[in-house]
Amino acid sequence: MEKAKVIFQPSGRRGEVERGLTVIEASRELGADIEALCGEKKVCGKCKVRIEKGFFEKYGIESDPSHVSPWQEEEEKFVTDEEREAGFRLGCCAKLEGDALIFVPEESRAGKQVVSKAARDIHIDHNPAVKRYTVEVTAPTFEDPTADFERICDALYREHGLQDLNIDFFTLRELPNALRDGKWKITVSVWMDREVIRVLPGEVEDCYGIAIDIGTTTVAGYFCNLNTMEVLGTESMMNPQCKYGEDVMSRITYHMMNPGGLEKMSRDIIEGLNTIIRQAVESTHPPKKKVKKKDGDEKTEEWVETPEEGKEYVRLTLDDVEDITLVCNTAMHHILLQLDPEHVGLAPFPPVNHRGLDIKTRDLGIAINKGAYAHVLPNEAGFVGADNVGVLIAEEPYKSDEIQLIIDIGTNGELVLGNKEKLISSSCATGPAMEGAQLTFGMRAAPGAIERIKIDPETHEVDYKVIGRDAWRSFSKPEEMKTKGICGSGILDVLAELYSSGVVLKSGRFNTEQKSERFRKNPNNKQPEFVIAWKDETSIGKDVVIAQKDIRQIQLAKGALYCGCKLMMRRMGIEKVDTVKIAGAFGTHVDREKALTMGLFPDCEIEKIQSVGNAAGDGARAALLNREKREEANWVSRNVEYIELTVEEDFQQQFMEAMQIPHMKDTFPHLEGIVPEEVLNQK
Amino acid sequence: MEKAKVIFQPSGRRGEVERGLTVIEASRELGADIEALCGEKKVCGKCKVRIEKGFFEKYGIESDPSHVSPWQEEEEKFVTDEEREAGFRLGCCAKLEGDALIFVPEESRAGKQVVSKAARDIHIDHNPAVKRYTVEVTAPTFEDPTADFERICDALYREHGLQDLNIDFFTLRELPNALRDGKWKITVSVWMDREVIRVLPGEVEDCYGIAIDIGTTTVAGYFCNLNTMEVLGTESMMNPQCKYGEDVMSRITYHMMNPGGLEKMSRDIIEGLNTIIRQAVESTHPPKKKVKKKDGDEKTEEWVETPEEGKEYVRLTLDDVEDITLVCNTAMHHILLQLDPEHVGLAPFPPVNHRGLDIKTRDLGIAINKGAYAHVLPNEAGFVGADNVGVLIAEEPYKSDEIQLIIDIGTNGELVLGNKEKLISSSCATGPAMEGAQLTFGMRAAPGAIERIKIDPETHEVDYKVIGRDAWRSFSKPEEMKTKGICGSGILDVLAELYSSGVVLKSGRFNTEQKSERFRKNPNNKQPEFVIAWKDETSIGKDVVIAQKDIRQIQLAKGALYCGCKLMMRRMGIEKVDTVKIAGAFGTHVDREKALTMGLFPDCEIEKIQSVGNAAGDGARAALLNREKREEANWVSRNVEYIELTVEEDFQQQFMEAMQIPHMKDTFPHLEGIVPEEVLNQK
Repeated sequence: MEKAKVIFQPSGRRGEVERGLTVIEASRELGADIEALCGEKKVCGKCKVRIEKGFFEKYGIESDPSHVSPWQEEEEKFVTDEEREAGFRLGCCAKLEGDALIFVPEESRAGKQVVSKAARDIHIDHNPAVKRYTVEVTAPTFEDPTADFERICDALYREHGLQDLNIDFFTLRELPNALRDGKWKITVSVWMDREVIRVLPGEVEDCYGIAIDIGTTTVAGYFCNLNTMEVLGTESMMNPQCKYGEDVMSRITYHMMNPGGLEKMSRDIIEGLNTIIRQAVESTHPPKKKVKKKDGDEKTEEWVETPEEGKEYVRLTLDDVEDITLVCNTAMHHILLQLDPEHVGLAPFPPVNHRGLDIKTRDLGIAINKGAYAHVLPNEAGFVGADNVGVLIAEEPYKSDEIQLIIDIGTNGELVLGNKEKLISSSCATGPAMEGAQLTFGMRAAPGAIERIKIDPETHEVDYKVIGRDAWRSFSKPEEMKTKGICGSGILDVLAELYSSGVVLKSGRFNTEQKSERFRKNPNNKQPEFVIAWKDETSIGKDVVIAQKDIRQIQLAKGALYCGCKLMMRRMGIEKVDTVKIAGAFGTHVDREKALTMGLFPDCEIEKIQSVGNAAGDGARAALLNREKREEANWVSRNVEYIELTVEEDFQQQFMEAMQIPHMKDTFPHLEGIVPEEVLNQK
Repeated sequence: MEKAKVIFQPSGRRGEVERGLTVIEASRELGADIEALCGEKKVCGKCKVRIEKGFFEKYGIESDPSHVSPWQEEEEKFVTDEEREAGFRLGCCAKLEGDALIFVPEESRAGKQVVSKAARDIHIDHNPAVKRYTVEVTAPTFEDPTADFERICDALYREHGLQDLNIDFFTLRELPNALRDGKWKITVSVWMDREVIRVLPGEVEDCYGIAIDIGTTTVAGYFCNLNTMEVLGTESMMNPQCKYGEDVMSRITYHMMNPGGLEKMSRDIIEGLNTIIRQAVESTHPPKKKVKKKDGDEKTEEWVETPEEGKEYVRLTLDDVEDITLVCNTAMHHILLQLDPEHVGLAPFPPVNHRGLDIKTRDLGIAINKGAYAHVLPNEAGFVGADNVGVLIAEEPYKSDEIQLIIDIGTNGELVLGNKEKLISSSCATGPAMEGAQLTFGMRAAPGAIERIKIDPETHEVDYKVIGRDAWRSFSKPEEMKTKGICGSGILDVLAELYSSGVVLKSGRFNTEQKSERFRKNPNNKQPEFVIAWKDETSIGKDVVIAQKDIRQIQLAKGALYCGCKLMMRRMGIEKVDTVKIAGAFGTHVDREKALTMGLFPDCEIEKIQSVGNAAGDGARAALLNREKREEANWVSRNVEYIELTVEEDFQQQFMEAMQIPHMKDTFPHLEGIVPEEVLNQK
């Protein structure tokens, strides 16, 4: 049977499938999420995907819309002519006839609501960088022919104390007619009390901004009313740069190997930011529905706004977005701004700049108001970027007496340790394993993902729970589970259970002595693996397993993190921290007790372990709503001492030790008599 | 005989000629200047012109390169394929076969060297807005992994006391590699002590800027070394906007009548600025000559640099131009910046802004260094713009005890009166007559232009002198004169002589009593006119005359000026001024005595009348080389009181009176007994 190479973006799920499968069937086989409400009856239109056109060097495939089966009548109802032109198809209709790179848009992804990037309720003082003022002036006369701009400046000084104002060049062009259209009453948006960036006729109250956290894997935007500080919406998407490499180093390498690669990656993330901003703005409009019309003999269809009853819509435009703050790690920062990231990837990893930057959005290509600035938060060091600064200004450890250990686990691990006396930071290469990525059956926290697990130490039988279903496996029929994979929050559970049940040894290797039929060698690659869910419990038609290399990935991540914390504490000369704060989606889901006992980070009272959610995004939002936070960010970025851990003499040894699972007798005393003595005691 | 409508740009000379004439022949007939060194032998290639393509609404003609005779072999030597594509032809080869708008590039214009826009030697303190600093830093280490930008900032603070520096976003992109290419030695250009706008590896000393004066008719640029203050070169050209209208009001009208007209006029002047800048930069390269080569069987030609022996060339690029200052009247200012000029054209003429603007050149489309700013000087009022501010900061009347009257005569007349106690300004609609434009035979100060004249009071015989020939008419054979027209500096002479010889009366009307054969009615329009040069003395094949409407134009200009000065003095409560300064090309050529006696401006001791040349351009240059002049300009623009003269109750009467030629008996006592008593005494 002929095969087709298929890659789903932005999830990155890839593999070979039999030709003739529909895109939905292939996505199921490869573990990509596509929404299919109607069960592939071609009536819901939810499974819209785009077949990309082009040669994708990284994957060695040529993709083209013509590599799937011809257009079907049923698709016309859901795919507009414009979309069809762009390569859009319904996943239930298009059959794979050749290699294809398939983009699954946010709205077609199953379980998208589970992405935990919601804004937390943190305290922020209200002092946005962009503020609105309305003034009324007299019309010019021969006695007072003062120019338009100086006329409103005089009023802004008299009524609001604003002095020495400049005006953006493009905004100045709007001024004369805005002033006359408003009959000499005008509303101006002023940036940092020094530059008029927008003028509107008459009085207009609310203004808007967006704070965006650009993660290596995920991009999340918080759309805010700058007057009321209300978060109007949270939008998120996969970082479109994932196609150039899943981690920071591979994107830096992509730049070094491909002339024009930096510009390409920069353009892609800018386009991503523009998508998020557009979605945020459109969320203030009534939703559109397709309505059939009869115009004489012609039957046509058009999109008509259908407001929900009783709901009011603000109806914003892109021009109404007047400020944007951005946080990201240093490599993403450099790629976004097209600053050569080569040096930040080479020891001693110096970034191009530290301090926060104010860049006209038009110079960056961000499609908000033309006069607006983007504020990019400062970088601490090569591997501790503006996103960590975001975490710091959200958590403010520099105002605390207690010694805090702040861990931000994304694709890289970033660590900060200290209190108001001293702060040090470092980074560790955790890799994406903690987020469930790069594991054989790793997946996002979406329906069908295993999030809790128990393994019987004697029989090695497995019980588990998936997202989207309350009943555990042992209380369900196999076909009810519809298991797809293991998500980040389930990973630690899996490792802890594999170990405590004796399936895996302290070193992380499988215990070859075990008799369970779940333990086996993979028929293809001959590597040992352990079956978590049998084929008949899954919706992907194959066993969900944990392979030896998966366990290694988790161990590497855990080891890097633990070793990093330990070395930083040694530097600070402390034995114990007062508080551990875990940022990122991982923190939200992790079982604190399991994390402690598995040795993810050093000892701490369990009630002093806090999840602080997407603190980097919170920091971006704080800088959006309170300009003093930008100053604070610049200060802290230069007052956190960055420690390069890999240059410590005993780093390698510390890291190796940290990869081990802690001594079982200490951490799992209840297992005595259950697992064999030699497993329990092995070092 | 069939005719062709022809317009020459940028001179604006237009008319109908017989079809079949060459472009050169037509230019001679219509008084446009085209260089033709070889006498139309098709061997010098100097008469290169461009036949424009398009419908020119303003003139109601359709122009196309196909409206001239087919391409000739001789042209290939001088017109490149690229130029040919763009519509370039040799004026001696192309014959007119239909209507055409013909652009004569600067280098093809005859007598271009006479345009008097050279930089004056005025005192300027050295303190440019853009300064260069070289620093050397240590390479980053694990102990000091400070970012590139902060690394050089620390050195710039330590060695030069520069604090709180920002860096242009695009310049930041150049930083990491410039630093490494220079082996950690780097030269930075810093704007206003606060923003790094350029980085260069190693040590680079000199940096450059250009000051440009955008007149309604002429654009002049002064290319300067910002370190040594040396003027490297002066470049000038006609304002390319002339095709939309010759004066300010007609361009404002063009904007109001044509959607997109503002953008079009703005693009044209920006393109003009870029041409001037490119010429300035190329003047630092060796000249190129065409050299024939033999490559195997193929004979080719190519342009080869041929440096003059012993001469050193700086070889600058556009990137080496790091600062630009711009002065222009308020309407030109608004059109340049695409600020709606409609309101500045309507009473009470409020401009969009006063203060000086710093605009990134990339936002304006000016093709100098990408990080550079353009500084546009402030406007005083609707009709007294940044060019007048330029005059003020060059002449500094606000530092003087003496009461100065400063007159800037371009297409508009701008007046400033006062001293360090008080300054008032105003404008008067002189029209372009004083520059020789819009008169039947008015022309630029180029060879063949009448610049001095004498008329015998008894015989009304005329003697005159032309630019480019020392001998007067009376000492020459007719065919030696090659007269073409009358230039601005000759105009006042003509009027004074016409009047003092009795040809023209005090009211400006021709004395119909005179018997001279030079006085006649024009055979076509039946209007009275006076022949200055007979056909056989000219190179244009027709009589050069002064028509009644020409005298009216001069009278209107003179009247506006005199009336403006008088009313301002009344406002100030003074009878007499201490000094009169005349700016602009007109000032350079005017006969001070004639100007006084003809009543161009109020009485003043003749030795206190000074010509100050292109003072507006000098002011732009002062602001380029001394940033404090920009502050001074902002201050003065708001501290000169603008007086709208037209609202004075007796304005109309004053203006009418001022149009009259002063009482003859007072001003020309020597004429008693020569001209008839009734002429001498008429009011």
